[in-house]
Amino acid sequence: MSSTDSWLRELRAALPAHAVVDDPDVVAGYSRDMAMLAPSGRPSAVVFPADTAEVSVVLRIASAHRVPVVPRGAGSGLAGSSNGVDGAITLSMIRMNAILEVDPANRLAVVQPGVVNKALRDAAEAQSLYYPPDPSSFDWCTIGGNLSTNAGGLCCVKYGVTSDFVMGVEVVLADGEILRTGHRTVKGVAGYDLARLFVGSEGTLGVITEATLALRPKPAAPVTLVATFDSTAAAGKVVEAVVTGGLVPSLLELMDQTCIRAVDDMANMDLDRDAAALLVAQSDSGGERATQEIAAVASACEQAGATLVHHTDDAQEGAMLLHARRIALPALERIGTPLVDDVAVPRSRISEFLDRTAEISRVRDVVIGVVGHAGDGNMHPTICFDPKDADQYERAFAAFNDILEVGLSLGGTVTGEHGIGNLKLDWLAREIGPIGLRVHAAIKGALDPLGIMNPGKVFAPQLPVGVRPELAVVGR
Amino acid sequence: MSSTDSWLRELRAALPAHAVVDDPDVVAGYSRDMAMLAPSGRPSAVVFPADTAEVSVVLRIASAHRVPVVPRGAGSGLAGSSNGVDGAITLSMIRMNAILEVDPANRLAVVQPGVVNKALRDAAEAQSLYYPPDPSSFDWCTIGGNLSTNAGGLCCVKYGVTSDFVMGVEVVLADGEILRTGHRTVKGVAGYDLARLFVGSEGTLGVITEATLALRPKPAAPVTLVATFDSTAAAGKVVEAVVTGGLVPSLLELMDQTCIRAVDDMANMDLDRDAAALLVAQSDSGGERATQEIAAVASACEQAGATLVHHTDDAQEGAMLLHARRIALPALERIGTPLVDDVAVPRSRISEFLDRTAEISRVRDVVIGVVGHAGDGNMHPTICFDPKDADQYERAFAAFNDILEVGLSLGGTVTGEHGIGNLKLDWLAREIGPIGLRVHAAIKGALDPLGIMNPGKVFAPQLPVGVRPELAVVGR
Repeated sequence: MSSTDSWLRELRAALPAHAVVDDPDVVAGYSRDMAMLAPSGRPSAVVFPADTAEVSVVLRIASAHRVPVVPRGAGSGLAGSSNGVDGAITLSMIRMNAILEVDPANRLAVVQPGVVNKALRDAAEAQSLYYPPDPSSFDWCTIGGNLSTNAGGLCCVKYGVTSDFVMGVEVVLADGEILRTGHRTVKGVAGYDLARLFVGSEGTLGVITEATLALRPKPAAPVTLVATFDSTAAAGKVVEAVVTGGLVPSLLELMDQTCIRAVDDMANMDLDRDAAALLVAQSDSGGERATQEIAAVASACEQAGATLVHHTDDAQEGAMLLHARRIALPALERIGTPLVDDVAVPRSRISEFLDRTAEISRVRDVVIGVVGHAGDGNMHPTICFDPKDADQYERAFAAFNDILEVGLSLGGTVTGEHGIGNLKLDWLAREIGPIGLRVHAAIKGALDPLGIMNPGKVFAPQLPVGVRPELAVVGR
Repeated sequence: MSSTDSWLRELRAALPAHAVVDDPDVVAGYSRDMAMLAPSGRPSAVVFPADTAEVSVVLRIASAHRVPVVPRGAGSGLAGSSNGVDGAITLSMIRMNAILEVDPANRLAVVQPGVVNKALRDAAEAQSLYYPPDPSSFDWCTIGGNLSTNAGGLCCVKYGVTSDFVMGVEVVLADGEILRTGHRTVKGVAGYDLARLFVGSEGTLGVITEATLALRPKPAAPVTLVATFDSTAAAGKVVEAVVTGGLVPSLLELMDQTCIRAVDDMANMDLDRDAAALLVAQSDSGGERATQEIAAVASACEQAGATLVHHTDDAQEGAMLLHARRIALPALERIGTPLVDDVAVPRSRISEFLDRTAEISRVRDVVIGVVGHAGDGNMHPTICFDPKDADQYERAFAAFNDILEVGLSLGGTVTGEHGIGNLKLDWLAREIGPIGLRVHAAIKGALDPLGIMNPGKVFAPQLPVGVRPELAVVGR
């Protein structure tokens, strides 16, 4: 790596003055995302490119001087993907925030990476279209970050994750070359699926500077159901009945007892505090079809012995019912600093996963509230603790890992939608094994031979298993 | 490359006697797929592995001796992907044809690559499930071939292509190592999306030996519509109205006048021989919803000035109406040997594409019938000619390329679902450009450093643009 002065001088000469910032106080503000346990370093500068050409310039200079580059969206990540690297450039994409096109005749949008997810949703909706991926942070996270981590959300049970909507991307490669890959057509199989290789690669293979995204017709206003159960097994049975019964709700969310009580404490919603689990389901199919779908879910709930089943086609009441789910995380924050885990298990194993998480909570003596996208098996056990208490921290960290262990043992994955970042490097190695790691390293080496793109994220074959990251608490 | 004797001896020692065949007559039968213009070489042997371990053995021996390996399914391909390479091993996957699992509680199946598409569809249907990808050759093509080319079919307008159903794959890498990648969960973002990198790579990166595939609930019996138009523009308007109107039919197919007449000649279906285009649409949404969807398509047809609109919820009559579309290729074969092209264009450009294809037909003086998946813009202009007539061959070949040129000029791709094989190498280079080619070569080099996996397929950076393949006519 050359001296910082030398590459900073080149960057300043090549870019507008305001695009390059090395004031340590400002830089510090761009050095972490929302992941609690993920370590972070001290970048030397934050660069704010205005267009693809400027990104290319940055990467040429970075390559010439072998300076690491960490792409960054809004910083809403939950795995440390965009956490700073010592001496590196953090490349903030937030100024590249144009929605370049919404094309109703081909149901697609072309956007820059700094566009906020909600801005795209709103622009689509204005043309009776729908961009489904809806991470909880949709009102502030960026599409670039969504692409980087292949983000999901509540929509996935029916509509899939971010990569299911990616038709093409423009990527600036590590050496500054600009690759356009993918297509504007619905189908296209010319060559390798490079677009989907870059999506989910967390900035380790290049910088996405534009994306062509498929849109869907705007769905009907939802019909909503809420149900409570006196055992997690009963809630699990409902999920299984939904899957085997051929139902595809547009949303199927779950909260465990800890969450139910936390939400009720915060919002006095008159929830059943003795319930072991609560499910919220929606159908956006419209008309008779939506009524049928929700009636079928209601029937599955009753057959599983639900203690309460209520449904409504009133959109406002539906939004209120869903509100309980949406405030789960803020409600859990009242108990302690929330450490959000992210595991996906086969849908038939949800009840078992909940029971084993409850056991972890007892054994480790930490509060764990589980919210989850039950319809697709993606669970977010959230450990609530006081990170200033070293003993609690130790137990919370142990519980975090216990949960991943259980997820893998049930045939699941250590991340359903948050990504690996630098938070789960050892777990990625566990999940994909040595051959998987070797293939990752080979592809990384092929596209980024100098290793400047977001080093130390996603995988680090050299990292010994069981490395314990330094404590780092993030304010919200 | 070692002498053939040496590696053949090793293969015979390592595998059961019947698994290794070098009888030139038998080998010749495995040296081509269904692609007319694609060149093919003479493999030295065909190997029929029975399991993943045997595939691994073959690739270890092939690597040690630097013998090329060409993976092959049923040979139904339309781009020469599995065409033989001189001196190579053709690896026929047809003995690995077990459906290992159909799991209704997680809506997935685990299959070996030699499973015929229809066998998986039937096994899914037996459990009220549905595997959507349905290439025209579904009753004989294999899932391995479908994965290799990322095959599509009639279902794509609503359900997507093969890769949209791939949750995970097992792959034997060029050196014989076995990689398992992907997951059994609906969501999973642990590491790079390697599964989708192998899907569509046409056997150039490894051999897929197992796949975990998502299934969908079995849809309702379809409601079917047929409509004719006195201009291609009118039919194009309907497609645009369907897309902008928020409709998602489960099938939306198109035939041009040449096809209509060919089908009518063959089957006496009393079609309107003066119609410029015919559309067939289906909705499998069931009940009131299906009726509404088809009524909306009917209304779009009427507003576009259709000369006939007819719809039915009788499944048998619907199948008869769709029959006209299904026999289009055999009907065109009566005019001449069919050379099937494969282009996808943005859905808003279909009418323009049809008109320009008609112009190519006039200028090149060859019959071109167009059938297409109108709902997703994937068109199959089919040139009917006498390949023994050198002049006709020349004109057919020119028309084939003109069509690809038009496809690209309309913002499309040179292959929507058949793949590149060795048929469109120069066009792949045109479409993805030098940076795209460089990235392809880098990834190929990372995963197959000796270059033994299906060499000369998908891309060949060294191939001069405009290479004219030797004539090769395939019997059916």
